[in-house]
Amino acid sequence: MHNRLIQLNADYAAAIDDDRLEDWPGFFAADCLYRVTTRANYRRGLPAGLIYADSRDMLADRVLSLRKANVYEMQSYRHLVGVPRVLRADPQGGLKAATSFLVMRIDRQGGTDVFATGQYLDEIGADGDGLRFKVRDVVCDSSRIDTLLALPL
Amino acid sequence: MHNRLIQLNADYAAAIDDDRLEDWPGFFAADCLYRVTTRANYRRGLPAGLIYADSRDMLADRVLSLRKANVYEMQSYRHLVGVPRVLRADPQGGLKAATSFLVMRIDRQGGTDVFATGQYLDEIGADGDGLRFKVRDVVCDSSRIDTLLALPL
Amino acid sequence: MHNRLIQLNADYAAAIDDDRLEDWPGFFAADCLYRVTTRANYRRGLPAGLIYADSRDMLADRVLSLRKANVYEMQSYRHLVGVPRVLRADPQGGLKAATSFLVMRIDRQGGTDVFATGQYLDEIGADGDGLRFKVRDVVCDSSRIDTLLALPL
Repeated sequence: MHNRLIQLNADYAAAIDDDRLEDWPGFFAADCLYRVTTRANYRRGLPAGLIYADSRDMLADRVLSLRKANVYEMQSYRHLVGVPRVLRADPQGGLKAATSFLVMRIDRQGGTDVFATGQYLDEIGADGDGLRFKVRDVVCDSSRIDTLLALPL
Repeated sequence: MHNRLIQLNADYAAAIDDDRLEDWPGFFAADCLYRVTTRANYRRGLPAGLIYADSRDMLADRVLSLRKANVYEMQSYRHLVGVPRVLRADPQGGLKAATSFLVMRIDRQGGTDVFATGQYLDEIGADGDGLRFKVRDVVCDSSRIDTLLALPL
Repeated sequence: MHNRLIQLNADYAAAIDDDRLEDWPGFFAADCLYRVTTRANYRRGLPAGLIYADSRDMLADRVLSLRKANVYEMQSYRHLVGVPRVLRADPQGGLKAATSFLVMRIDRQGGTDVFATGQYLDEIGADGDGLRFKVRDVVCDSSRIDTLLALPL
């Protein structure tokens, strides 16, 4: 299970970095929670400070919006993802895990900067043919958030 | 053993990044060496250029000092740690390993910069309920060291 | 095989970061392809935009040139490498894999900056005593390439 979780994270990151955004919702259960917030907000119990989606369909809508806005034309991303720490494994096969990430942004002029660091706080379950995220809370370390954060992390 | 070593590194980094500093000495054997130095000094045979501690108690003292100085109030860290390369495995179960790291620092204003890159040069042994560091030499690539380096790396 | 591939990448990066450049050609098959290009060029079908070598001997020649130019005296590198995604495994034991990387550069004054991000697109085969790269395409995200890119990535 652990190796499959490592692989899930690598595949998730590659879908975003390779601009295969349409594959991104498929990493989530149909009935899921995807939330992006800051560390400061998370500690105050505000896990949905920046982005909130509670279904795979909402994630697919978000991808459509991003395509319309051509946001991906202007930059690309590179995720570096750590090893997941399994915080809990329940008998039904569900997992809670925490995983560090660093995301770099590369703009069209070739400039490279740190887009975000933080950790994924995940609940993962077997779902049909593979593992899927039931909950993915993206907790960014920095409170200074780029307005482009609408992009998947 | 290798997977346990990967996990040890992930847990170690998370204790620091999650501000659970009090857990940090527990990753070391009671009788340990923790040293921080620069690559240039290490090559000159000076492994203790910046920090030197030769027991778990000294590490606990260091945590107390850091708490008193409120250093953690001002910033947080994010470790990205590579896969350990096992350099030697002795028949008694001890290991020598080398592992690359990158540590980002996030300040209270939300600015993010590279705090340190380098490698861990470790001697690890089974110790009671798990693996612990007998020696952890933290060799930083850069010779320009922030005075805040008293923080654990 | 997967764990051996992770280890191969860690060993490859360490040879460069530890300034054991002479070990670098040994990670490739005698008859290999090593190419460095940008993402934009790769998409246009130009995989050899910046560096092209089609044998281990050419890589060894490159190392000699780098030593003569003393390029390594002026800086060091630190690779952070992700988990490889195996894209194809053929019955003869060959593998195609894609792996994200981030390379930091540390100059003699101690300054640290991002040298490159991107992905390795590899074809790997068992070769004598271990795995070796038959093809390693290094696809850099940024189109703004440092003239020092002659250094191995």
